[in-house]
Amino acid sequence: MVVANTGPLTLEAFLALPETKPASEYINGQIIQKPMPKTRHSRLQSKLTETINGVTETDQLAYAFPELRCTFGGRSIIPDISVFLWQNIAFDANGEPLDDVRIPPDWVIEILSPDQSANRVTGNILHCLKHGCQMGWLLDPDDRSVMILQPQQPPELVSGDEKVPMVGMLPLELTVAQIFGWLKMK
Amino acid sequence: MVVANTGPLTLEAFLALPETKPASEYINGQIIQKPMPKTRHSRLQSKLTETINGVTETDQLAYAFPELRCTFGGRSIIPDISVFLWQNIAFDANGEPLDDVRIPPDWVIEILSPDQSANRVTGNILHCLKHGCQMGWLLDPDDRSVMILQPQQPPELVSGDEKVPMVGMLPLELTVAQIFGWLKMK
Repeated sequence: MVVANTGPLTLEAFLALPETKPASEYINGQIIQKPMPKTRHSRLQSKLTETINGVTETDQLAYAFPELRCTFGGRSIIPDISVFLWQNIAFDANGEPLDDVRIPPDWVIEILSPDQSANRVTGNILHCLKHGCQMGWLLDPDDRSVMILQPQQPPELVSGDEKVPMVGMLPLELTVAQIFGWLKMK
Repeated sequence: MVVANTGPLTLEAFLALPETKPASEYINGQIIQKPMPKTRHSRLQSKLTETINGVTETDQLAYAFPELRCTFGGRSIIPDISVFLWQNIAFDANGEPLDDVRIPPDWVIEILSPDQSANRVTGNILHCLKHGCQMGWLLDPDDRSVMILQPQQPPELVSGDEKVPMVGMLPLELTVAQIFGWLKMK
């Protein structure tokens, strides 16, 4: 996690810079590089993306994009998973999604990495909620728990066999144990 | 952070065990040892404790206890700092505080360590708020920010020159920058 003190760099100037690897976010005028994803993070991210899209794509309800840059409200962030309701995805004439996303996801999922600042990640989720996002999940693999963040509501921590609250219209039911159960690969 | 799967150990059985170092907490039936505190953590903890008590002790408004075991609502936790309003501190006939604390602090402060599960710490703060605590602070030294948690309210992230919300009656004003400024010792 590199924090560069960039002085007066504007959001638009930041967006004109070449992408880095891992990608960098623009938060409160600072450029902050995301941590290098590790195996458990990658596993949870891919299984969740696949599971969500498995029940939402065919009926064109929603789509979960991993590592999608979303720029709105003065920040440019890259949630681990950004889920957009289908009607909120902008397409071109060929039906391909537009690259430049200037709205918050409807549902944002972040998976904490050991070397990641928890408040910074939570801060990004709160930024999404403030700008129209309906639901934030903060997964902590070390605690086997999910912090649920919703607009105007106190946070809720769910674990074990508890069901994870879901964005209203999505036909998906998951328990916390099911999600972290995906970590066990053999 | 050692997580022992303790099976059916009860809270009272846990409390009868000898204390460990670092201390262990009892959360949802599991015994979880706190991480070994590091220098920055220790510095913030001591400066905050000293600063709070500097304005609250003389007038017997409140007292900030570092590393105090608080047992209530089925958990036994040891917040980094537990602040009790003076009238909520139980004293013996000699005016000495009783050792066995069975109520939540009025204000709880946690300082994230790099090797600590963020959701577990936030979960402990939420447990306090659910049982009557008025205010929770979650300091993240890596983000130079404080997450503010209050009953029935969405979390709020404060940073830089923003004032940190305070428990109503305490005559203390601090900005986030002041708090993390204490890390610079020379």
